[in-house]
Amino acid sequence: MKNRVYNFSSGPAMLPESVLLKAQAELLNHHESGQSVMEMSHRSSSYESIHFKVEKDLRRILNIPENYEVLFLQGGASLQFHMIPLNLLKPNEKAGFLISGQWAQKAYEGCAEIREAVEVSSTKDSNFTHVPEIPKDLSAYAYVHYVSNNTIYGTRVESCPPFDHPIVVADMSSDILSREIDVSKHGIIFAGAQKNMGISGLTVLIIRKDLLGRSDQKIPTYLNYVTHQKNQSLYNTAPTYPIYMAGLVLEWIDEMGGLKQIEANNSLKAQKLYDYLDASDFYVCTANKENRSWMNVTFKCPSEQMDTELIKLCQERGLVNLKGYRTVGGLRASIYNAMPMEGIDALISVLKDFKEKNHV
Amino acid sequence: MKNRVYNFSSGPAMLPESVLLKAQAELLNHHESGQSVMEMSHRSSSYESIHFKVEKDLRRILNIPENYEVLFLQGGASLQFHMIPLNLLKPNEKAGFLISGQWAQKAYEGCAEIREAVEVSSTKDSNFTHVPEIPKDLSAYAYVHYVSNNTIYGTRVESCPPFDHPIVVADMSSDILSREIDVSKHGIIFAGAQKNMGISGLTVLIIRKDLLGRSDQKIPTYLNYVTHQKNQSLYNTAPTYPIYMAGLVLEWIDEMGGLKQIEANNSLKAQKLYDYLDASDFYVCTANKENRSWMNVTFKCPSEQMDTELIKLCQERGLVNLKGYRTVGGLRASIYNAMPMEGIDALISVLKDFKEKNHV
Repeated sequence: MKNRVYNFSSGPAMLPESVLLKAQAELLNHHESGQSVMEMSHRSSSYESIHFKVEKDLRRILNIPENYEVLFLQGGASLQFHMIPLNLLKPNEKAGFLISGQWAQKAYEGCAEIREAVEVSSTKDSNFTHVPEIPKDLSAYAYVHYVSNNTIYGTRVESCPPFDHPIVVADMSSDILSREIDVSKHGIIFAGAQKNMGISGLTVLIIRKDLLGRSDQKIPTYLNYVTHQKNQSLYNTAPTYPIYMAGLVLEWIDEMGGLKQIEANNSLKAQKLYDYLDASDFYVCTANKENRSWMNVTFKCPSEQMDTELIKLCQERGLVNLKGYRTVGGLRASIYNAMPMEGIDALISVLKDFKEKNHV
Repeated sequence: MKNRVYNFSSGPAMLPESVLLKAQAELLNHHESGQSVMEMSHRSSSYESIHFKVEKDLRRILNIPENYEVLFLQGGASLQFHMIPLNLLKPNEKAGFLISGQWAQKAYEGCAEIREAVEVSSTKDSNFTHVPEIPKDLSAYAYVHYVSNNTIYGTRVESCPPFDHPIVVADMSSDILSREIDVSKHGIIFAGAQKNMGISGLTVLIIRKDLLGRSDQKIPTYLNYVTHQKNQSLYNTAPTYPIYMAGLVLEWIDEMGGLKQIEANNSLKAQKLYDYLDASDFYVCTANKENRSWMNVTFKCPSEQMDTELIKLCQERGLVNLKGYRTVGGLRASIYNAMPMEGIDALISVLKDFKEKNHV
């Protein structure tokens, strides 16, 4: 479509154009219901058919085993930073955290406000350019939390989970649905929808059934996973439109050939961009090579001034939101599932032109 | 537009068609940004201009004084049932509740899980056909909570607030923006957006500034109003699309002539329907006359079987979601701001035909 930009935002992020076109086409009248999805009662059969199909499709695409519940929640990952310890930890227990970046740090702090939280390992000293080493003995912790992809720093864990533990908690906000994962090795997987699964306002949480009620504490009703599980995520009014959008994104994943194909595409996209950057003799990637993210590619020009000029040039050429996070600097190209290879090519083309002009 | 139904859902509910058309038109490209609002980073200037305009418009339309904060939250009213006592009550304090229906009851229970909650007055014995009497002395309570409109039972409080107290907490989920209110007589006003303010996934909370931090307790960061106030409701990823939709609804309110005109329209719509029902000698309204809601009109046919047949006839004629809530029975016509007079006329027309056929 004309006039659309390539949006390299870290999230909320670019959506597949076909998803937006479908949402647009049925905005006033969904499937001959005479209503917008936005107008549907969350208790109506027309909405329920959407709600339960999204769950079913997500279960199939992520290969979620029967002994896991899928919950549609609100409040982002930030609310989960409190809800997870409230629901999992008994008063005398502690949780371990692999501090791989700002979001892992926030999860640690959110837990520490409620129960004992321990930094098991951290790469803060290197400004999170790589992911933490895993200590051999994790038995002191009731659960261990890790972040699969670090949006800000452009790093990722190659194998999910990167360790064995009876209760592994994974924040997959920035790479869920970008690659195949083994859900069965996790206790909880959670993710905000706004990067690879749709739009903001929806948090998906996948929890092994035996963990429901684990803390054995009195938890305020809305903050208790059991409330949402018993009511099939319809305890109160669900974020119906974000759930519908997640459904359209899941249908698009099917159209693209499923998660295996999405993963292959993401590998090609990231590789192409990293290969260009590595060979450029001008741009420098900020993340350690062995931990490089496929979702967020962080790099720098030879000077901060050039970073600024390059971001401006990108903007002029219709490539937006490339500014790196303030604690890292440089540029960050977030290339989630919806970023087509044409977007990578367009970016490389600008990078080449800019280098041509500025290389000494 | 052809094929659109009149949607009498209690919420999520009908939206103005012009709002949906605007959302549809700019779905892939908002204001020449080249992006959908759904794709905008919540930290981008393009999104921020939406975010802060919604707040500004809401402040103007509701005449919110300077010493109040407006917060855009998630989790529905249900999360507020915990957050309000967490944020307002010191450990030895108690809150009073006017139990006018199921939602007041839930607010009471949500508070009781955290602090002492007291049923000040209740109309449960009459199945909430009217609103509770107000006791003269409310000084024992740190705050007193009331519900301005009771969706399920079709009752409302005529004057908001219906009592004086240093900290009045109002759940206006089902009638905010339907009439002029005096914000300055309240400590907190909160409302889910999905009835009169947009779509589900957004909760708006208006709080008098001196109440921020009142409980003087350690509150988990995400559950603390101060967190959201300090970050202008952008502590974490906001429900950006629901906020945008609220903005479109506010613009529509301006186009309609502002809140005074909306209130006049609502009065006419409700009066027309109640007048017909009262004069019918067939249908019976379930709420006490002096407490009748302008938003939710609850009534019954002479028999339950007729209720069922009438609901079916309405459905066939394109009038949907008229089934009453199970604890009340009969029919409920939710006629929020977006229901045009034509919808009222269409309903009365079906009611007349049905009565004609069934009246003995």
